[in-house]
Amino acid sequence: MRKIYVVGIGAGDPDHLTLQAAKAIGRTNVFFLLDKGEAKASLVELRERLIKHYGHPHKRIVEGRDPDRDRTPADYTGTVADWRHRRSLVLEELITEHLGDAEIGSILVWGDPSLYDSTIAILEEILERGAVDFEFEVVPGISSVSALAAKHRVGLNRVGQPFQITTGRRLAEGWPEGVDDVVVMLDAQHAFTKHPEADIYWGAYVSTPDELLACGPVAEVADEIVATRTEARERHGWIMDTYLLRRNR
Amino acid sequence: MRKIYVVGIGAGDPDHLTLQAAKAIGRTNVFFLLDKGEAKASLVELRERLIKHYGHPHKRIVEGRDPDRDRTPADYTGTVADWRHRRSLVLEELITEHLGDAEIGSILVWGDPSLYDSTIAILEEILERGAVDFEFEVVPGISSVSALAAKHRVGLNRVGQPFQITTGRRLAEGWPEGVDDVVVMLDAQHAFTKHPEADIYWGAYVSTPDELLACGPVAEVADEIVATRTEARERHGWIMDTYLLRRNR
Repeated sequence: MRKIYVVGIGAGDPDHLTLQAAKAIGRTNVFFLLDKGEAKASLVELRERLIKHYGHPHKRIVEGRDPDRDRTPADYTGTVADWRHRRSLVLEELITEHLGDAEIGSILVWGDPSLYDSTIAILEEILERGAVDFEFEVVPGISSVSALAAKHRVGLNRVGQPFQITTGRRLAEGWPEGVDDVVVMLDAQHAFTKHPEADIYWGAYVSTPDELLACGPVAEVADEIVATRTEARERHGWIMDTYLLRRNR
Repeated sequence: MRKIYVVGIGAGDPDHLTLQAAKAIGRTNVFFLLDKGEAKASLVELRERLIKHYGHPHKRIVEGRDPDRDRTPADYTGTVADWRHRRSLVLEELITEHLGDAEIGSILVWGDPSLYDSTIAILEEILERGAVDFEFEVVPGISSVSALAAKHRVGLNRVGQPFQITTGRRLAEGWPEGVDDVVVMLDAQHAFTKHPEADIYWGAYVSTPDELLACGPVAEVADEIVATRTEARERHGWIMDTYLLRRNR
């Protein structure tokens, strides 16, 4: 039976790799890379470095073209579903063409595959179509959220309290009900600026050499974060940032 | 300057250890262990195994007695705060007595130190008292939540949707506002049984040799999970379980 590992490789620091992930990489015959078509050079470089370092000598690397995606769609969920579908077709073709019987394939995923990543859903979609068959296994990774909290040396929850993980798009609609601690992923809109009463623990490119961190009351640090974020995004051509917002009851 | 690492060692699988954690363990002069006074033999064994395997030959291990804690208090937050305070006094004494100038100490934490763990808060409390001084650094780990999701091969969020991480105590008060996906830690009360309409992805001792997994509609699998959980808890003398509840909108 063919097997595919979905390997979480951590948030950017090569030392985030777990022993389980290193072993999975070492057992892999074929690495499937979907090129984002973006200028995330430092991320691509890290992935290549891990494959080179932990992969076995006869590994193969096959690359597919990641389908284009509308980044500011009117119908967000529908657009993502369509993008996933097109992505699943590209990956299915790669698997059919390149993964031999009884071979092991791997897809390396930033952070943790269970958190705001589509790889698991894409593999399920391919299996549901039934044109190609394989087992798959998920190897958990250090998420950007854990990395952020570690760098700020802060807990995500307070004693006995819940917290929410959400997107900038959602936060822009208002502070979520029932929680005073909110972790925000994928915020291109600086939604935190609407909550001057909260404290923010912000980080971009966390645990990479380009890491940027800031924290404090939003009222005091929001301008600095917006300026830093804008400048960094221009300089690198992309940004990956995350933050924890914490308000007092 | 003395330094203390708070090292996340993952959810139970020795291969959850990251390279960063292995390196921190290797640099450590003194490991601080607070014995829980409970029968979590398999966890203690794993910690000892990691220290033996990755620690350097001249490491020292010092143990303190973890203060007792009321597990069913009327005032939950107050009781936890008091327990943390007493714990911080025990740890402060160990640091003062055993960590030499310019030495490195480590505290090994299950899962990820940012998620429902008190070690960071305890170190902050010790520093605030000002009787002893040190730097500290947090090394993120694979959380029990990531491990659970990986084993069930499921994402924690759905496309563009938020999710909440909470406790069994909170869930018992009702389904949280504004989310359809809830991760529950520390549920001694089987609070999931009140939500027969949801799907559950449950796991105990996840990623250890004693791992138990179950999933399906709560209406169909709740009885099985309650029975499994009760039996396992009796057999092991303790249980550590986590679950994701997912309902359709």
